[in-house]
Amino acid sequence: MYPVEKTRKFTENIFKALGCTQKDAKLAADVLINADLNGVDSHGVARLPGYVRLSDHGRLNPRPEIKIIHETPSTATIDGDRGLGLVVAPFAMKLAMKKAKKAGSGWVAVQNSNHFGIGGYHAAIALESEMIGIAMTHSAPLVVPTYSKEKLLGTNPIAVAIPADKQPAFLADFATTAVAYGKMEILQRKGLDAPLGWVQDAHGKPTTNANAVKEGGGLLPLGGDRENGGHKGYSLGAIVDIFSGVLSGANYGPWVPPFATAGFHGVAAEQVGKGTGHFLGAMRIDAFRPKEDFKQNMDRWIERFRNADHIEGEHVQIPGDQERYWRAERLKTGLPLNEKVVESLRELSERFRVKW
Amino acid sequence: MYPVEKTRKFTENIFKALGCTQKDAKLAADVLINADLNGVDSHGVARLPGYVRLSDHGRLNPRPEIKIIHETPSTATIDGDRGLGLVVAPFAMKLAMKKAKKAGSGWVAVQNSNHFGIGGYHAAIALESEMIGIAMTHSAPLVVPTYSKEKLLGTNPIAVAIPADKQPAFLADFATTAVAYGKMEILQRKGLDAPLGWVQDAHGKPTTNANAVKEGGGLLPLGGDRENGGHKGYSLGAIVDIFSGVLSGANYGPWVPPFATAGFHGVAAEQVGKGTGHFLGAMRIDAFRPKEDFKQNMDRWIERFRNADHIEGEHVQIPGDQERYWRAERLKTGLPLNEKVVESLRELSERFRVKW
Repeated sequence: MYPVEKTRKFTENIFKALGCTQKDAKLAADVLINADLNGVDSHGVARLPGYVRLSDHGRLNPRPEIKIIHETPSTATIDGDRGLGLVVAPFAMKLAMKKAKKAGSGWVAVQNSNHFGIGGYHAAIALESEMIGIAMTHSAPLVVPTYSKEKLLGTNPIAVAIPADKQPAFLADFATTAVAYGKMEILQRKGLDAPLGWVQDAHGKPTTNANAVKEGGGLLPLGGDRENGGHKGYSLGAIVDIFSGVLSGANYGPWVPPFATAGFHGVAAEQVGKGTGHFLGAMRIDAFRPKEDFKQNMDRWIERFRNADHIEGEHVQIPGDQERYWRAERLKTGLPLNEKVVESLRELSERFRVKW
Repeated sequence: MYPVEKTRKFTENIFKALGCTQKDAKLAADVLINADLNGVDSHGVARLPGYVRLSDHGRLNPRPEIKIIHETPSTATIDGDRGLGLVVAPFAMKLAMKKAKKAGSGWVAVQNSNHFGIGGYHAAIALESEMIGIAMTHSAPLVVPTYSKEKLLGTNPIAVAIPADKQPAFLADFATTAVAYGKMEILQRKGLDAPLGWVQDAHGKPTTNANAVKEGGGLLPLGGDRENGGHKGYSLGAIVDIFSGVLSGANYGPWVPPFATAGFHGVAAEQVGKGTGHFLGAMRIDAFRPKEDFKQNMDRWIERFRNADHIEGEHVQIPGDQERYWRAERLKTGLPLNEKVVESLRELSERFRVKW
């Protein structure tokens, strides 16, 4: 187990070593540490070497001048100036909230950004002002549309944060695929097979081969194959891609650049827009009904679902419960970083002469 | 095969017989006929007797005074005054578009409405002004959240319409379940089993029993069980329910009233809000980037996906392609109404003395 605050400080110092301002480094580290606290290990400090590689390959601007390039009372498009998505997305969410304050809702499309970490972090910023927050992003192509042999979509997550009263907030944050790619990597490390419905092989056939995506296959959209509603997951991933990419002026579909340069896909030679894109939104509760009414009904919604008659040995969770469970645990125990991750952080420590 | 225009006129006349104005009857019939034309037989004139039952049970106001009860520059909440959702939803979408014209985007929550037919119809209204349209609605509880034995959510569909340039528009319209309940009814009629992953039985166990939902079981959310991402479908259905119900002041979760009084669930004795709710939105393209740029890139997105290397014997469809295929067919052939449906329409014809 690794202490939270020391890991946070180290992460912050690495971002500073990349050239980020103190403020941006702190924010970027906060996004990653929150992923680890919430049990989303794949998106936490394990990704820090990825952000460093992004910098090494000249794809990261540590001091971006984020610009509003288009706006109306309730919308805007911003150019992230190749900054960290970890910093650009909170900027976009705050702008959406500012718009919502005046116009009732605010919607911000982002171009020219990079990987933004966990969407839930950005959506939850809206909760600070008791607004509903929405965050989505596309990512590099790993996913096959229904009947496609080509990977054309990312795992394209959607996050939605909704405030309640006495109950903790509703916070959904999910990839629009059957599983995140991180789950395949876990199976690969353990030499295990994948259940049918997660991936297809290079010929478009269902497979249990956990290495299928590396061998010309692809992740299946949420739902899996056509019979089980995979075309709905494909539609959902497509909507995220179009809002994040086509609406913002970023790349889209198979042209979305990979997170870092690692992995089995490089940056497409041709680009159809600027960098990676996101789409964020905020809605004021009292733009629809009195806030107290809403919050009390939201409590009732949550209580009814949480107390539903459940399958033996399980119970019905509210989106966000899982993350809160892990956070409470890990604030006590520290972060259970994987050995390989710690090794890669030690390398960064040596390279940047930052104390680990 | 039944002629489109005659069926349309008949449907319109039945709505008039229920007391609707000429204008509303025409609009309501248009929504149903469009479902039939687009191949969504379950949501077409097959539902006409359901709307009549709604009226018989005093749950339908044929002459609603739809009122804006709350608004900001980019949002509103409307009270549908127990009108037909088929009429209330287009009103809401037009209001969203009016807001979008001034504020960049418009978002309308609806309370006190009834079943709105196909979401795609309402989302596509935005295309007339080259805007992005979004429509969602909750519905009566048929779906079990992950690990729940109780049915707490409807099939809660989401529809998104996105304009393109030379290509036809992107139009996604899907239930947030593995399958719509209509597919179970087809299996029931044919005495066939369901594939695993569509439903669970009364004990929460996976089952192939096509009658499971009637026998205390429930439809599974998109994704199916937990292993295949069903908790993501549950999250998605929950978001639709909260936006349509809690934000609007309608009922929500298990309290959402059934479409008509048929079926195996009645209206809950207790109500936590007013009627059924919807949530509709419109975004102006040029609230984010120049419209021509967007439309050309949208064409490129569509062409790239449609021409993707595909599984033998199939091809990659763009959301909306299927509906356009059926529309082209049925405009030529007429509507392939099922015998039972025709019988029920004949009954309406006799009862209301409206020529079939």
